[in-house]
Amino acid sequence: MCFSLPLLGAKVMKVEKVGREMCKANEIAVDSELELELELIPETTIPPTVAEIDRDGEELFVPPLNFAMVDNGVFRSGFPDTANFSFLQTLGLRSIICLCPEPYPDPNTEFLKSNGIRIFQFGIEGYKEPFANIPEDMVREALKVVLDVRNHPVLIHCKRGKHRTGCLVGCLRKLQRWCLSSIFDEYQRFAAAKARVSDQRFMELFDVSSLKHLPATFPSSNSKSGGFNSQGRGWKSYPKY
Amino acid sequence: MCFSLPLLGAKVMKVEKVGREMCKANEIAVDSELELELELIPETTIPPTVAEIDRDGEELFVPPLNFAMVDNGVFRSGFPDTANFSFLQTLGLRSIICLCPEPYPDPNTEFLKSNGIRIFQFGIEGYKEPFANIPEDMVREALKVVLDVRNHPVLIHCKRGKHRTGCLVGCLRKLQRWCLSSIFDEYQRFAAAKARVSDQRFMELFDVSSLKHLPATFPSSNSKSGGFNSQGRGWKSYPKY
Repeated sequence: MCFSLPLLGAKVMKVEKVGREMCKANEIAVDSELELELELIPETTIPPTVAEIDRDGEELFVPPLNFAMVDNGVFRSGFPDTANFSFLQTLGLRSIICLCPEPYPDPNTEFLKSNGIRIFQFGIEGYKEPFANIPEDMVREALKVVLDVRNHPVLIHCKRGKHRTGCLVGCLRKLQRWCLSSIFDEYQRFAAAKARVSDQRFMELFDVSSLKHLPATFPSSNSKSGGFNSQGRGWKSYPKY
Repeated sequence: MCFSLPLLGAKVMKVEKVGREMCKANEIAVDSELELELELIPETTIPPTVAEIDRDGEELFVPPLNFAMVDNGVFRSGFPDTANFSFLQTLGLRSIICLCPEPYPDPNTEFLKSNGIRIFQFGIEGYKEPFANIPEDMVREALKVVLDVRNHPVLIHCKRGKHRTGCLVGCLRKLQRWCLSSIFDEYQRFAAAKARVSDQRFMELFDVSSLKHLPATFPSSNSKSGGFNSQGRGWKSYPKY
């Protein structure tokens, strides 16, 4: 089954239902210069950012829930809200990986459009233990997007930035050859009281062998060695968009 | 009172006791080419790294306790152990900020020397609530070291990477204009059950006005805008070492 959803400013948004809970990775090219092929939605007004102001009258930034830097050019968080947009602008994002299946909210889509940010959506359903069924192939596809520095800076997010995001980051760490206890420690720092054994089991079993040919280290601008390199394998220099 | 401690390969290590619990910031220049002025300690053998091995026989990395990336070129953790050295090498560190007053352990000093890493030690005593007395001027000096991209990549650490490190990172976030709730959220993610109200009060009261002329954003190699810039103030291009 294949169907399309309308999306403001999007050229094509295809969601291919491959299985009951599995959507094939769909890339939504958000570009204000592209014509909308499917359906035009009237322009909506973005709600004003809920900005906090400090004593000097300067705006304060509100990072998304559970925001953190994962590696050079890779960030993680919970679902961004309008209050987070001015902060997100400071990251100069090229793309966002959304791990939720729900249609992207209009204000967020408008934010992507006006900032030229590409979205990769991997619709992984949330679940409650013990009914865990994390789609490994979708995580693998998402990981390939993370590994491609042409997509950097990239923000990975799900709803709360704990489980789906935690699993994807954990698989990245596995490819970066972190030991499991450190991977779980990082996962638990974000999941806290909501940490799931099934997520940790997923990361433990996740097979990275098919991805080992891809560089899992990303360039930094100010390293002594000229690049953050954890495996003796250099990072590729991709052309910029 | 002023006294000197011997340090392998160090030119000068001065620890000035200014008050009972306050040490003036002391920079320890670790450089194998410099002559040792004070006392020569026989070369010690670094204990072999406690490496974990994966199924393919490849070495796995063990990041230090509570390790995380704070920003471009800035990392945080607990006290690094010999097991963490091979991981730390992947970061290509230029410097380490140690927030503990104790003499740096010999294996760590040897690691710094052999990797050309400079150490800045700010001896802030650990404490138990309610006897909180965080030396604000020392945190301010440490923050200046963090803000100077010539020291990047830099690792900030204390003993457990929770309180002293958390306060310093929180002060950086304040300068980066994060709202207090996000600063506290990040602090609590690392401190977890050991979070201290007194630390959070310290961050809330910490006055960043004297540091506002310094760039609090750091360059990234792959940003659309050419640099991670959160305040409309560009980052300076410092000469590299």
